[in-house]
Amino acid sequence: MTDPVRPWNFSAGPAVLAPEVLAQAQRELLDWRGTGASVMEVSHRGRDFMDMAEEAEQDLRTLMGIPDRYAVLFLQGGATQHFAQLAMNLAAPGDSADYVVTGHWSQKAVREAEPYVRTRVAASTEADGFRRVPSVIDVDPGAAYLHYTPNETIHGTEFHRIPESGDVPLVADMSSDILSRPLDVSRFGMIYAGAQKNIGPSGLVLLIIREDLLQRTGRPMADIFRYARHVERDSMLNTPNTWGWYLAGLTFKWIAAQGGLDVIGERNRAKAEALYAAIDGSGGFYRNDIDPDSRSRMNVPFRLHDEALNTLFLEESSQAGLLALKGHRALGGMRASIYNAMPMAGVKALIQFMRDFAQRHG
Amino acid sequence: MTDPVRPWNFSAGPAVLAPEVLAQAQRELLDWRGTGASVMEVSHRGRDFMDMAEEAEQDLRTLMGIPDRYAVLFLQGGATQHFAQLAMNLAAPGDSADYVVTGHWSQKAVREAEPYVRTRVAASTEADGFRRVPSVIDVDPGAAYLHYTPNETIHGTEFHRIPESGDVPLVADMSSDILSRPLDVSRFGMIYAGAQKNIGPSGLVLLIIREDLLQRTGRPMADIFRYARHVERDSMLNTPNTWGWYLAGLTFKWIAAQGGLDVIGERNRAKAEALYAAIDGSGGFYRNDIDPDSRSRMNVPFRLHDEALNTLFLEESSQAGLLALKGHRALGGMRASIYNAMPMAGVKALIQFMRDFAQRHG
Repeated sequence: MTDPVRPWNFSAGPAVLAPEVLAQAQRELLDWRGTGASVMEVSHRGRDFMDMAEEAEQDLRTLMGIPDRYAVLFLQGGATQHFAQLAMNLAAPGDSADYVVTGHWSQKAVREAEPYVRTRVAASTEADGFRRVPSVIDVDPGAAYLHYTPNETIHGTEFHRIPESGDVPLVADMSSDILSRPLDVSRFGMIYAGAQKNIGPSGLVLLIIREDLLQRTGRPMADIFRYARHVERDSMLNTPNTWGWYLAGLTFKWIAAQGGLDVIGERNRAKAEALYAAIDGSGGFYRNDIDPDSRSRMNVPFRLHDEALNTLFLEESSQAGLLALKGHRALGGMRASIYNAMPMAGVKALIQFMRDFAQRHG
Repeated sequence: MTDPVRPWNFSAGPAVLAPEVLAQAQRELLDWRGTGASVMEVSHRGRDFMDMAEEAEQDLRTLMGIPDRYAVLFLQGGATQHFAQLAMNLAAPGDSADYVVTGHWSQKAVREAEPYVRTRVAASTEADGFRRVPSVIDVDPGAAYLHYTPNETIHGTEFHRIPESGDVPLVADMSSDILSRPLDVSRFGMIYAGAQKNIGPSGLVLLIIREDLLQRTGRPMADIFRYARHVERDSMLNTPNTWGWYLAGLTFKWIAAQGGLDVIGERNRAKAEALYAAIDGSGGFYRNDIDPDSRSRMNVPFRLHDEALNTLFLEESSQAGLLALKGHRALGGMRASIYNAMPMAGVKALIQFMRDFAQRHG
């Protein structure tokens, strides 16, 4: 179990990290692997770092079952930069690409791609207030790719099946649900994720790409934006975020030590079920409006029946050691992000607090 | 003084960090500012992080005397990405830009900019084997900007005066000598630096830009590549590298505690003088071929008179607690990087070892 003295941190990202990972990082901060230096102070091209970097990639390949024909990259720029960069790389000038629009992040993915590709909306749930994921996606067989956002961090929706895209490469921004359950990577053309939810600290992007997609663009651009060049140079075309890569590696080992993605996925299912059950069973004191089949296992937004209680809820929850429950400013209300590193004990503490609060203010 | 048990780390980057900075980072890794969370686990939009981020910027402005008309950004992508991105931002389509070519890094700056601007070489020391910085720069008054590399990390050259560029905005990649001495920021249009030498860990780029240069480009591009948008959003257009920003802030406070850039600059001058004197006074056992007026205070490459001794030199120096002295693969030989966080004691230890080694093998 985790240290009971630490508060429970429900931040949407940067988010809670596994306490075992943080403890190891703290222990070896001044002397990493007996080098006498911090992992932050050694060359990314030195043997110690290269060994660690390669091990992290192999651990991830094992965890996710990534086929050999996929490259794994550790890049920078956040998912937002890759909204643009993936369009530069996966589409040639004049191509069009399909997008599934399920909320804030998929809308942003479209907007940042527009200077580089003709975007087309293949499905949108905007008319439903983004309260569900679409059941039908109208894929253009000529699209360069189909992009979707498996989990919308702000709206709290999640796809619980992988969309069918036929021969069109499927591209997924998995920033907020990567590594949260088993996944058939072979269904995807490209998966990418900002690290700051289920992988490690911010400033690192994990990218998994089918190698036949690397040579698509005929566009003039700087080498530093070409995924193909990063693959050739094992993510060391320039100095990577070495601290982020190191913490990602520790997190991959932590997931394996928990039992891998089957165990993690089962835990995440149980955590989310418990929290949604508490909300649904609160007699209307708390409310989550997402279609039950589309509810996120990672981000659980909820509202109090009386918005005038919001400030008090946030004050008292914080005093009770339940941090960062304030909802995204675009939606208001509350949001509990319950990523991999949030144990059931934290979810139970939140549920208990919510019950007590409802009793006192019901 | 620093902990004498730690070896001296002469890595070119990622490089040695101040031990006081590392110790503080270690101490508060699990509980930052009493939040009960790591600085890596809190939202970049929360008050704690925003306060720290603003303080870091103010500390940097004070240290460097940055005028108000300059914006300060904490970005990602390494200097290499900004080789491209600065051309996208500071030049309109069809513009040409001037470059001073003094070695590997300025050559790379040209290459990455070429898809976005017509590059023109305003000075080059390639014919001299990059053993000096140019005395004359032929600036095109119509150039969008003049780019140069004040310190070439691989070749070990450094400008000891700021080039004259007239009304053409001067742009400098200061990755390897930012904060190493006092600087008149008002002479520059833009200064940028990868953090991993004198600022903090890799994965962070510091960028200082005169605000009138922000609206130059008429180019279609994603928002995430526009410096103007990052300025509007205080470097939080997307999630920044929060850990890097935090460590940069600690490093700025450490520099201030040392006495600021005057003191740091004097130390760096003394360290470099001592090391070059030891090389020049070795009776030819060690050699540095850079023109004395162009020698870097940050990166000191040197060769042994007998290259067959290289392996032994590296083995014995490493055993003596002097790390990462191997020269860049492009040049061979040795290189001692002596950034801000390397104290005179480390330089003296290196000099003593070099003398002993020369006596034993001379």
